[in-house]
Amino acid sequence: MTERRVILVLSGPNLNLLGQREPEIYGRQTLDDHVAAARRVAEAAGFAVEHLQSNTEGELIDAIQAARDRCAAIVINPGAFGHYAWGLHDALAMFDGPVVELHISNPNTRESWRHRSVVAPVATGTIAGFGGHGYILAMEAVRRLLA
Amino acid sequence: MTERRVILVLSGPNLNLLGQREPEIYGRQTLDDHVAAARRVAEAAGFAVEHLQSNTEGELIDAIQAARDRCAAIVINPGAFGHYAWGLHDALAMFDGPVVELHISNPNTRESWRHRSVVAPVATGTIAGFGGHGYILAMEAVRRLLA
Amino acid sequence: MTERRVILVLSGPNLNLLGQREPEIYGRQTLDDHVAAARRVAEAAGFAVEHLQSNTEGELIDAIQAARDRCAAIVINPGAFGHYAWGLHDALAMFDGPVVELHISNPNTRESWRHRSVVAPVATGTIAGFGGHGYILAMEAVRRLLA
Amino acid sequence: MTERRVILVLSGPNLNLLGQREPEIYGRQTLDDHVAAARRVAEAAGFAVEHLQSNTEGELIDAIQAARDRCAAIVINPGAFGHYAWGLHDALAMFDGPVVELHISNPNTRESWRHRSVVAPVATGTIAGFGGHGYILAMEAVRRLLA
Amino acid sequence: MTERRVILVLSGPNLNLLGQREPEIYGRQTLDDHVAAARRVAEAAGFAVEHLQSNTEGELIDAIQAARDRCAAIVINPGAFGHYAWGLHDALAMFDGPVVELHISNPNTRESWRHRSVVAPVATGTIAGFGGHGYILAMEAVRRLLA
Amino acid sequence: MTERRVILVLSGPNLNLLGQREPEIYGRQTLDDHVAAARRVAEAAGFAVEHLQSNTEGELIDAIQAARDRCAAIVINPGAFGHYAWGLHDALAMFDGPVVELHISNPNTRESWRHRSVVAPVATGTIAGFGGHGYILAMEAVRRLLA
Amino acid sequence: MTERRVILVLSGPNLNLLGQREPEIYGRQTLDDHVAAARRVAEAAGFAVEHLQSNTEGELIDAIQAARDRCAAIVINPGAFGHYAWGLHDALAMFDGPVVELHISNPNTRESWRHRSVVAPVATGTIAGFGGHGYILAMEAVRRLLA
Amino acid sequence: MTERRVILVLSGPNLNLLGQREPEIYGRQTLDDHVAAARRVAEAAGFAVEHLQSNTEGELIDAIQAARDRCAAIVINPGAFGHYAWGLHDALAMFDGPVVELHISNPNTRESWRHRSVVAPVATGTIAGFGGHGYILAMEAVRRLLA
Amino acid sequence: MTERRVILVLSGPNLNLLGQREPEIYGRQTLDDHVAAARRVAEAAGFAVEHLQSNTEGELIDAIQAARDRCAAIVINPGAFGHYAWGLHDALAMFDGPVVELHISNPNTRESWRHRSVVAPVATGTIAGFGGHGYILAMEAVRRLLA
Amino acid sequence: MTERRVILVLSGPNLNLLGQREPEIYGRQTLDDHVAAARRVAEAAGFAVEHLQSNTEGELIDAIQAARDRCAAIVINPGAFGHYAWGLHDALAMFDGPVVELHISNPNTRESWRHRSVVAPVATGTIAGFGGHGYILAMEAVRRLLA
Amino acid sequence: MTERRVILVLSGPNLNLLGQREPEIYGRQTLDDHVAAARRVAEAAGFAVEHLQSNTEGELIDAIQAARDRCAAIVINPGAFGHYAWGLHDALAMFDGPVVELHISNPNTRESWRHRSVVAPVATGTIAGFGGHGYILAMEAVRRLLA
Amino acid sequence: MTERRVILVLSGPNLNLLGQREPEIYGRQTLDDHVAAARRVAEAAGFAVEHLQSNTEGELIDAIQAARDRCAAIVINPGAFGHYAWGLHDALAMFDGPVVELHISNPNTRESWRHRSVVAPVATGTIAGFGGHGYILAMEAVRRLLA
Repeated sequence: MTERRVILVLSGPNLNLLGQREPEIYGRQTLDDHVAAARRVAEAAGFAVEHLQSNTEGELIDAIQAARDRCAAIVINPGAFGHYAWGLHDALAMFDGPVVELHISNPNTRESWRHRSVVAPVATGTIAGFGGHGYILAMEAVRRLLA
Repeated sequence: MTERRVILVLSGPNLNLLGQREPEIYGRQTLDDHVAAARRVAEAAGFAVEHLQSNTEGELIDAIQAARDRCAAIVINPGAFGHYAWGLHDALAMFDGPVVELHISNPNTRESWRHRSVVAPVATGTIAGFGGHGYILAMEAVRRLLA
Repeated sequence: MTERRVILVLSGPNLNLLGQREPEIYGRQTLDDHVAAARRVAEAAGFAVEHLQSNTEGELIDAIQAARDRCAAIVINPGAFGHYAWGLHDALAMFDGPVVELHISNPNTRESWRHRSVVAPVATGTIAGFGGHGYILAMEAVRRLLA
Repeated sequence: MTERRVILVLSGPNLNLLGQREPEIYGRQTLDDHVAAARRVAEAAGFAVEHLQSNTEGELIDAIQAARDRCAAIVINPGAFGHYAWGLHDALAMFDGPVVELHISNPNTRESWRHRSVVAPVATGTIAGFGGHGYILAMEAVRRLLA
Repeated sequence: MTERRVILVLSGPNLNLLGQREPEIYGRQTLDDHVAAARRVAEAAGFAVEHLQSNTEGELIDAIQAARDRCAAIVINPGAFGHYAWGLHDALAMFDGPVVELHISNPNTRESWRHRSVVAPVATGTIAGFGGHGYILAMEAVRRLLA
Repeated sequence: MTERRVILVLSGPNLNLLGQREPEIYGRQTLDDHVAAARRVAEAAGFAVEHLQSNTEGELIDAIQAARDRCAAIVINPGAFGHYAWGLHDALAMFDGPVVELHISNPNTRESWRHRSVVAPVATGTIAGFGGHGYILAMEAVRRLLA
Repeated sequence: MTERRVILVLSGPNLNLLGQREPEIYGRQTLDDHVAAARRVAEAAGFAVEHLQSNTEGELIDAIQAARDRCAAIVINPGAFGHYAWGLHDALAMFDGPVVELHISNPNTRESWRHRSVVAPVATGTIAGFGGHGYILAMEAVRRLLA
Repeated sequence: MTERRVILVLSGPNLNLLGQREPEIYGRQTLDDHVAAARRVAEAAGFAVEHLQSNTEGELIDAIQAARDRCAAIVINPGAFGHYAWGLHDALAMFDGPVVELHISNPNTRESWRHRSVVAPVATGTIAGFGGHGYILAMEAVRRLLA
Repeated sequence: MTERRVILVLSGPNLNLLGQREPEIYGRQTLDDHVAAARRVAEAAGFAVEHLQSNTEGELIDAIQAARDRCAAIVINPGAFGHYAWGLHDALAMFDGPVVELHISNPNTRESWRHRSVVAPVATGTIAGFGGHGYILAMEAVRRLLA
Repeated sequence: MTERRVILVLSGPNLNLLGQREPEIYGRQTLDDHVAAARRVAEAAGFAVEHLQSNTEGELIDAIQAARDRCAAIVINPGAFGHYAWGLHDALAMFDGPVVELHISNPNTRESWRHRSVVAPVATGTIAGFGGHGYILAMEAVRRLLA
Repeated sequence: MTERRVILVLSGPNLNLLGQREPEIYGRQTLDDHVAAARRVAEAAGFAVEHLQSNTEGELIDAIQAARDRCAAIVINPGAFGHYAWGLHDALAMFDGPVVELHISNPNTRESWRHRSVVAPVATGTIAGFGGHGYILAMEAVRRLLA
Repeated sequence: MTERRVILVLSGPNLNLLGQREPEIYGRQTLDDHVAAARRVAEAAGFAVEHLQSNTEGELIDAIQAARDRCAAIVINPGAFGHYAWGLHDALAMFDGPVVELHISNPNTRESWRHRSVVAPVATGTIAGFGGHGYILAMEAVRRLLA
């Protein structure tokens, strides 16, 4: 697996509006800003980054399935899907590399329905609450896990 | 915002079969009948109505995102999505006009899984149980909220 | 029943202070303002409105019982009684016309004890969260239900 | 206490409509019919019956308080109050004779909110589900408890 | 069914020790005393009484099954079985005459596991808390239900 | 508000029987004794005391409403109402002075239904478990809060 | 309906990876293997089989809606959707032929979130835990239900 | 184990009355009809069928214990025992061949106490809701599992 | 009671298969081995041991009842009955000597339904998790309790 | 006990930072300020005050144990320990004088984990929500309880 | 491990007051009495006993850590810590010899917060309810486990 | 605050045994290894690291209090304390710099009592599941938060 050099970054529903939405919770940076920062960290470590944002669970599942045998790791900010879309759980369970669950804010300090994670049971690790820094930390985590 | 003159009417999964399905619960009018009646009320008040029915959560989220800065209000009959599809919640939370949650029957008097609403926390108001009249009442509500 | 031309409007405890209390939740209009607006809508449709506000559950039950065979519909804003006073439920269950449950704010977005409704199981429909407009919408709903 | 010869029969909210309401649940006999039958049994055993029906919890509490040191027993069909009006519980707890909880239908086979009884913890015994026969059985029970 | 003149009285586990066990809860009369008193009431009304006590659920089910088409009514004091032995529930559900659930003490004021009744959903009515008088009241109830 | 010099003391259902009821829980002093002691403390601090005991929730709500703009503080021993009568909660929420919740015994060490308080969320503070001393402590608390 | 000769077989998210994923739970046969076996049984009984696998709930709903008036029965292995996607429930509720819920493993012996089924309330019957044999048994069940 | 050629079919309490009881739920065929049909399928596959119905949990446990090392598979319709009789669970856990849990109706769509299965955790698979066809399907399942 | 010299050892369902069943949980010793070891300890202390194993709750209840006034103590390993068979609870509650609840494994570290004990509320003490040593420890406990 | 003239005041974790921490909840007075005020009241009544603040549960338990037979009363503001440290509960249960539970703010109106009190079951009474006045009221309460 | 000859006996908070505290629950013997009795049994079997009682969780954790590679077994009566102090759980999980959980009374028959054990999941076995005999039985258990 | 250059690293109970304990969960590196790695990252960014491991909650609270106005950030791996020791919560709530909650394994995939975090509500962010890499990531997070 160490030969694979692509990290798949996935963003769930409404994350395409990052920077425009509830900035007191999510900050003012856009999703493009975050992905670009992540890409810089990844490339410095010799990894390419592919990114997909989708509002449809099935498209994210398709992407996770396609990453098998091809991508080195998956970093997923599942947005609201992270709290009920168990189809993502089953897809991630079949991926054979590290999976990093990423949240910009801390779901545990928000509404109670955000406290349950369908991703956590199949994630290698979780990074939450660090705002945009989370994308960079996730890349750093992947780099170290794959070292 | 008062310059915006379009009301987006959204219908969730299976509502395209209204009039063919469980008429003792939902009545015999079709979704087209309901939308046409709503349109008449809206147009009399100087609003246009756009309508989308979809069985896919992501398409509804896309439509809600596209309504930002363009539509005056959203009236959403979320169907079954209204009880688990939190991605709709997050999309509606970013809309900057009134949101009316609409149900033809009264979810609280049906199965327990229909008692939880993911739309209510981000809705301006709720209209439920009035059958097809609900569409007209929702338009009336929007008209008054925007007056 | 179509011959009955009186709509009974009932207001539960503390609603007599509307306009003086927590205006950020309930607005600044008084209960008299709301009833007057409702009456205008009702009268335009050929209905008279009778109104009773009481802080005592038994007086509301008495009024509901007296409305049988005499009133065309009941619109009830039960206030706090709507969350525990099951005697109201049983009284409304015996009324043979439409019952509209009305809330000025949206109980589902407030304290958890306001999420349970003893009126919903016996209400034809519910209107919540539209502020003072709710009274007018309720009259409109009754008019259409009785048409 | 054996010198007291009055049995207080109390009826909670909406029971004054017995015989007019949901006859498939409660039967077609009126409350007067039931009380008259109970009185016949009681008088045959040398007891007088006093009866009060009220839609206001406070009036029932007042009556229970007034029965202390004067009435031999209380038979209470609390109606909806039996499921939330804990003030009745405290009043009955202070009565020093037998208390019979009476229900015409069986609350445990109806809505879940009817399953909790605030009267049971302070009742000597319960009779439920025997329709109008319940009033006669309750009198019979009192007669035997006081024998 | 009115031609059937046998009332089946069933007693669940440990009731054979009545009078020897926790007399502060169950009194000092034996099960034979109770059945004899019940028989006197029944015979005065033209009914015979058959009685079975068993510590084995299956034997009680057998007896209930055998009572079909033969017995006029069943009076069952299920003892501890009344709180978990759903096989009794299914057997009683098939009996086509009145079923009276009988408890000497009031289960609702004892341990929480005694609060659930598997018999109540299939019983015509319940008599609880009247001590040994309950057997007589149950017979009286049957007599009136079959009148 | 500092010009208002009346403290309203409210007593809920059955408290009129204090001293006659369950003395092992509530002691042998009457409600009059408690109010008189409270009055002495209040008057020494320059406050008058008005007292109302009622078994009817609506009468207590009426009194709370009437205290607005007139009374300096409310001390309420809600009795059983304190555990379900949310109408009291809403009335107290509109009062603009200190509210002291008072219990003679400690509800948290009694039946579980006494553990929930509808008054606590709108009370400035709570005093419970000190028997008749509670009335004096409540007056002392009011005096200090208004100092 | 007996004239309809098509059985619609639906497979939910990630089932396209059957045989590649967690073989200790799901076995080594592919989805194509299972559908081919089912088709052989169906064709022997004079039925055609149409099959759709999708990772998107909306596509499955679309297919269920299109099966109305055209297909004789639906066999659905909902995968993870079977535990939260109530839109499927509503779609299946409108289908007027037998619906068989099929699981390769036994959901009740896996994670607790797999214990709830949104399909069961609208399924004619359920077959679970028989591995790939389940597809053949489901066809056999349909054949007998339609016989 | 493949040498064993006896399939043990077990029926729990009250199933001996199948065909006489609630035919809208269980159909009109008798238990003998079902077992005879199952036997035909089994014998065609070279298996003998032994059948035991009992209203006593202990007799079913005895039969399961006796089947060890002797029977090829167990098909059990546990009736009401399936929801509380954990002794059956432990007995089945010790059987070393396939165990098929069989229900004529679908327990998950009936009373909530029928939703829990004590058999499922130790069953190879479950067949529910197919009426009398279930017995045949269960035999078919066993045949395939043992092939 | 000190004159009684018989200790009744009771074993619930499936314990007759000890040594053959799940040895990683229960060990390889048979029930006869355990009882023989217990008898050696008891006889050294001057007690006789009577032992009964049964798969039927009623037989265990019968034995407990018969032990009254005759046996010095009861040691019961209730097996699965210990988690739902409240009839055992009521029988043990009437025994007037020490009752020792015994488990070979530790129920609290197994399935959640094994966490509730119907025996514990009426047991003098509990010994769990020590494998076959438990029988000896239980005898030792009885000896000391009766010393 | 009336001869003992020392009141032990205990302060749990983080209360040493009172006045520096979340002043909108706890006010600006320091713990020393509160204890000094309490001491003035106590000394006026002839009592000495000893005070201990600790962040370690064991040190508070040690102090409670040492107060036995020596201190007249304990006033404890347990801070966060009051919600989980049951060791404090057991220590206070052994103290033979009045125990006053004191909170500066009202725990019931804060996070849900602050709603459970491990002190309340063993406290004579509770004073909560009166800010720094609570210390004085607690002293006043002790004085009256010991009078 | 068989070479290690020290058994560590640990006692949690407030157990140092055994004999002085609630003797109706814990008896009149002191902790020293119990440890001395345990030591006699242990020494007869060739083991030394070390004992530590502490009111501070950290000190007990320190002692458990220090016992690794040095002590043969741990017997722990955790007192109140046994119901919430998960740090003890983690420490015991790392000990590589038998761990016996010991309670003088039976926690399952006391307050509900005593029903959860943080020690049980990492204990070899549990002995509860035998009063002071428990210490001796625990030693006996250790002796046999290490034989 | 930017002038403060010390990062306080705190380790809760039993973490001093890292590397010796359950290496399949926690890995084989010691706590010293982790702290040394963290220190290297911190020093490269111009920060000093202070580290404290304690098995006593109070000592960790003391250290958090002492860090106020002196340390730039706190990184805390609370171990078992993170799931019940609310005193830590209150202490961290008063710290005025970033707080990073760190877990070596993922608590959400272990026992249910590890799912609740008392630290999360007052943490800036959480890093869990990355093994020893977590310490380095936490330092990286702090560096970026303080940049």
